[in-house]
Amino acid sequence: MAKKLRIGLLGGGRIGKLHGTNVQNFIPDAEVVILADPFLNEEMEEWAKSIGIERCTKDPADVFAAADVDAVFICSSTDTHADFMMQAAAAGKHIFCEKPIATDIAKIKEALAAVEKAGVKLQVGFVRRFDRSHKAVRDVVASGKLGKPYVVKVCSRDPAGPPMSYVKVSGGIFMDMMIHDFDMVRYLAGSDVTEVSATGTVLTDPGYAEYDDVDTAIVTLKFENGAIGVIDNCRQAPYGYDQRVEVLCEKGAVQDNNHLENEAYISTAETVCSAKPTYFFLERYNDAFVAETKAFVDSCLNGAEIPVGGKDGLEPVRIAKAAKISLKEGRPVKLSEIEA
Amino acid sequence: MAKKLRIGLLGGGRIGKLHGTNVQNFIPDAEVVILADPFLNEEMEEWAKSIGIERCTKDPADVFAAADVDAVFICSSTDTHADFMMQAAAAGKHIFCEKPIATDIAKIKEALAAVEKAGVKLQVGFVRRFDRSHKAVRDVVASGKLGKPYVVKVCSRDPAGPPMSYVKVSGGIFMDMMIHDFDMVRYLAGSDVTEVSATGTVLTDPGYAEYDDVDTAIVTLKFENGAIGVIDNCRQAPYGYDQRVEVLCEKGAVQDNNHLENEAYISTAETVCSAKPTYFFLERYNDAFVAETKAFVDSCLNGAEIPVGGKDGLEPVRIAKAAKISLKEGRPVKLSEIEA
Amino acid sequence: MAKKLRIGLLGGGRIGKLHGTNVQNFIPDAEVVILADPFLNEEMEEWAKSIGIERCTKDPADVFAAADVDAVFICSSTDTHADFMMQAAAAGKHIFCEKPIATDIAKIKEALAAVEKAGVKLQVGFVRRFDRSHKAVRDVVASGKLGKPYVVKVCSRDPAGPPMSYVKVSGGIFMDMMIHDFDMVRYLAGSDVTEVSATGTVLTDPGYAEYDDVDTAIVTLKFENGAIGVIDNCRQAPYGYDQRVEVLCEKGAVQDNNHLENEAYISTAETVCSAKPTYFFLERYNDAFVAETKAFVDSCLNGAEIPVGGKDGLEPVRIAKAAKISLKEGRPVKLSEIEA
Amino acid sequence: MAKKLRIGLLGGGRIGKLHGTNVQNFIPDAEVVILADPFLNEEMEEWAKSIGIERCTKDPADVFAAADVDAVFICSSTDTHADFMMQAAAAGKHIFCEKPIATDIAKIKEALAAVEKAGVKLQVGFVRRFDRSHKAVRDVVASGKLGKPYVVKVCSRDPAGPPMSYVKVSGGIFMDMMIHDFDMVRYLAGSDVTEVSATGTVLTDPGYAEYDDVDTAIVTLKFENGAIGVIDNCRQAPYGYDQRVEVLCEKGAVQDNNHLENEAYISTAETVCSAKPTYFFLERYNDAFVAETKAFVDSCLNGAEIPVGGKDGLEPVRIAKAAKISLKEGRPVKLSEIEA
Repeated sequence: MAKKLRIGLLGGGRIGKLHGTNVQNFIPDAEVVILADPFLNEEMEEWAKSIGIERCTKDPADVFAAADVDAVFICSSTDTHADFMMQAAAAGKHIFCEKPIATDIAKIKEALAAVEKAGVKLQVGFVRRFDRSHKAVRDVVASGKLGKPYVVKVCSRDPAGPPMSYVKVSGGIFMDMMIHDFDMVRYLAGSDVTEVSATGTVLTDPGYAEYDDVDTAIVTLKFENGAIGVIDNCRQAPYGYDQRVEVLCEKGAVQDNNHLENEAYISTAETVCSAKPTYFFLERYNDAFVAETKAFVDSCLNGAEIPVGGKDGLEPVRIAKAAKISLKEGRPVKLSEIEA
Repeated sequence: MAKKLRIGLLGGGRIGKLHGTNVQNFIPDAEVVILADPFLNEEMEEWAKSIGIERCTKDPADVFAAADVDAVFICSSTDTHADFMMQAAAAGKHIFCEKPIATDIAKIKEALAAVEKAGVKLQVGFVRRFDRSHKAVRDVVASGKLGKPYVVKVCSRDPAGPPMSYVKVSGGIFMDMMIHDFDMVRYLAGSDVTEVSATGTVLTDPGYAEYDDVDTAIVTLKFENGAIGVIDNCRQAPYGYDQRVEVLCEKGAVQDNNHLENEAYISTAETVCSAKPTYFFLERYNDAFVAETKAFVDSCLNGAEIPVGGKDGLEPVRIAKAAKISLKEGRPVKLSEIEA
Repeated sequence: MAKKLRIGLLGGGRIGKLHGTNVQNFIPDAEVVILADPFLNEEMEEWAKSIGIERCTKDPADVFAAADVDAVFICSSTDTHADFMMQAAAAGKHIFCEKPIATDIAKIKEALAAVEKAGVKLQVGFVRRFDRSHKAVRDVVASGKLGKPYVVKVCSRDPAGPPMSYVKVSGGIFMDMMIHDFDMVRYLAGSDVTEVSATGTVLTDPGYAEYDDVDTAIVTLKFENGAIGVIDNCRQAPYGYDQRVEVLCEKGAVQDNNHLENEAYISTAETVCSAKPTYFFLERYNDAFVAETKAFVDSCLNGAEIPVGGKDGLEPVRIAKAAKISLKEGRPVKLSEIEA
Repeated sequence: MAKKLRIGLLGGGRIGKLHGTNVQNFIPDAEVVILADPFLNEEMEEWAKSIGIERCTKDPADVFAAADVDAVFICSSTDTHADFMMQAAAAGKHIFCEKPIATDIAKIKEALAAVEKAGVKLQVGFVRRFDRSHKAVRDVVASGKLGKPYVVKVCSRDPAGPPMSYVKVSGGIFMDMMIHDFDMVRYLAGSDVTEVSATGTVLTDPGYAEYDDVDTAIVTLKFENGAIGVIDNCRQAPYGYDQRVEVLCEKGAVQDNNHLENEAYISTAETVCSAKPTYFFLERYNDAFVAETKAFVDSCLNGAEIPVGGKDGLEPVRIAKAAKISLKEGRPVKLSEIEA
């Protein structure tokens, strides 16, 4: 292994650029050496050049074939994730893969099997685990100093809904939005989910109904360790990105507040007003994106344990599938009903 | 009607004493003129005397018969509430009744019918509606300035569980504890509940299982106006009485924080620490108990509208019954399944 | 001494009514038996009757002469405090005296000497010491767990200025407003003030200048124990009664936030808004008024130590005088320059 | 002018590296092309190379002579600032200079005159103006929506004192620490200081006294616009970097809270604890360092107004000198007494 981790970036869209920029600016012991994107254009090439990525290609195969690539970042569209994982594994490259690996469970399992067989590292991009506040909550739970977890709660709301073109193909609120929270509750509880029960409705835009989706949902969960939990999502919270987690334990509770745009506040004869929560995931989880990449690079270079592995990629998809069935059939769904 | 509202107090236990003391100390236009309690003893008589209640009796009939009693406060054990309501109604006395009216729906309906026929006023003791913070939340929702309510959330946890002797007869967590929250979500949403789905478990003390009860529960709800909601309860939150409500609306959200014992905080090299939430309902809802009595007295004397009426007494019991069935049968239960 | 402390109330104005009502409603082992006010009128007599004060008189001498009076509450105008203290002492009555004892130091000393000679108890009405948050701050400092105090800060602002008729006779901002803060810093620091340096100006209303007063002032202080401190006052803070204290110590800091009207807050696309601080001293220090009376009664009946004694009445007046000289002469003033 | 601003970095110590790294990573339209440091060593050269600075030299003259340098960042020791400014001005380079320009007023004036004569841009490194919370406070004041400023307060405490070797040469607490706050109050008040009065003492380490310095100080100030203010400093606040500002205005107040390490908090049977403030200036003002550089580059490239100019560099030094005299002589000192 070279002293620096040499990275091949698959996908030069928003999330690819984010990871690429983070690697070049903040990760001294890693560098992006090649970018592959089938839609490569002048703007993308200029961006790559501006941050020191020297090679660009439209063909992903160039990345897998490159002898000087130690690891890949899969930031392409979801439907390509599993195939790229398998190709990377076959080429002996470590893999950082954006979530979800796939929406089809058999496909995920096939990809995970390939990774395991190849013996390469795999990290899945559940970035919220690296947020300093959520992580502080989880660290308290995991330390055991509050005793056993009893109730795990996540409130997660976007500032504004996605375009309907996205809703059409996203797999629905459980697969495209709450999937982060399914990961978060597993992370906080330190336990797998055994049963879910979903409630949902369309409130912000009738368009969701056309695509058989909801925009507002509450899911209750049971965990293997006996805890229970609840997640509430809404695609449109006009005050910004609401991201709060909470764990009630035997000896106390631990939770977090939103991060605000700033800490100033104004007191007048009418009211006391402060700034809003940071606007969306780029603002809130900015530092967390860097932290997850640091962890991956550290793992590849120094053998540190991967913090979000293959099973962590699979389970949220299974929970999302169970939630979808629960909502449709109006009944609690056991995870044992879902292909494992 | 006399200038002062003359009250007959039924029940000299903890909650009876609380209301009696509040009336004598804080409600200038009301006075307790008689106390009836079958377990009347010297201590109770001394307490009555010390706050200026001149007559004491073991026989509730003395209260209903008294010509100088305008209204009764029913603070006796739950199983007597409905009968006392009917006797009071028959005697033409206004009624303040502690919750629940009864755990049997037919009984509640019988009592409500008697009240309606007699044309007396009835207020049910859902005291949390009068808490200054919860009320501020509800007033914002009711004002309509945030648009339609989307998601109603209540977190309600007791600092310590009740004795098992109470659990045995209480009717279970939905009837004895979450019933307050069933009232609260109706109050906040400004709408009736149409469906509930309950999850629950035993975590704090295996004793609950013996009485077919749970100590930790999450209930999701649907409302007539299209909103959805969730309540989480735990009988034991070591940090105190956790009482938080939240409503996400079309144009924003409104919620409240716990009331703390004081506003001091200490910053050291390790952490920044503040006081805990106020310990339990007597500390948190102290002012609210006075406020609900003021509202009742105002209603009796000046014709103001009763803020928590008969239907508000009935509905939470129906929701509790639905939640109990949902938990037992592992399915969502429509309120239309429950006797109305 | 009777089982109940029998109190003679001198003064039936705002503060007299406040203390009288508190005693009757909240202090079970005390009762007001007589009210004296030279301006006694029908309204005052009705108030007295309504809360169970049976005797009213225009002549304070009736109070001192009454055999059934154990203690007096001096709530009359400031210029009468010292004389009433001396008369009460001569009659062997314990004394609760509103602040300040007098604005003339010789007069205060004469009154304190009379109290000492008579051996009666004396408590001065610095009510803020009994506020739950300020007290929590002071208890942390006094516990020593944060080590020695370094910096003591008090921010104290009124929601609106007093009428100019009051400013004319009040003795100025240091004597009528900051005097509370001079007491508070002594209480927090656990030490006497040795030097003050005052800055002040007229910003809210030019009327203050006509009476040789300021409406906005900052005073820095040195303490015997080596700490330093600062107080800032303004007579007009439109957002309400701002009352915050802070002590930086060797091993950490302890401070408090304002008490808000309620704990609700609204999040919208523009901002997050909460309630304002409680409006003024009646709202903020409501509970503290009861607590100080409880402490006094406990001291008279059970020999508990008086929490705010004669020296505590004298020192803030001396500091106020020093601050006044400092502002006028533009120099730090040592307390040793002021009559002790 | 080239499309990118080409920067010569003078000084490769802690603050030089900070600025150099920020320019290379976060300022797309600027680049550091040369580093000069008389103590240039292998480690420094490696650092330069790692972030893409291609030329390194021990001789600052190489920077001023370089045709491809548009602007310099003066990050060398304080005693070289003014001379470097003059050399840069003579060479027609724009100047970003770390604070203070000098501790000698005549020297500062000489340097400012040279800058003005040359017509180059000058920005002084008062980074706190670019902190998102302090800036939000100032923007509210500057907007005028709260009316005129009345009282300006700054609390500024370091987590731990500097080494005594630094104290020996730093110029004292007013020149090395409170100088930031002197800038901040001018920024917040939008007005110049006309008079200061200082109180100070040695509490954390007797070593300060040996160097005629204090470790804890409170300074009150008067402003040209009629406002008054107060700053309190302590070199050792064990809970971290305490940085709070507050402005009371005619129609309300605006203030800020510290930034915390994270937003998690734990509630137990004893207390509710959160994270501490961010540890020191690198943690708290990290983003502000980037923002000030962006502003400078924008000014050089696009003609935007320099946000912290020559007078802003001079005035805090004058105030610091006045504070030093005030502390020594025990009297308020007018700024008119200090060379302008």
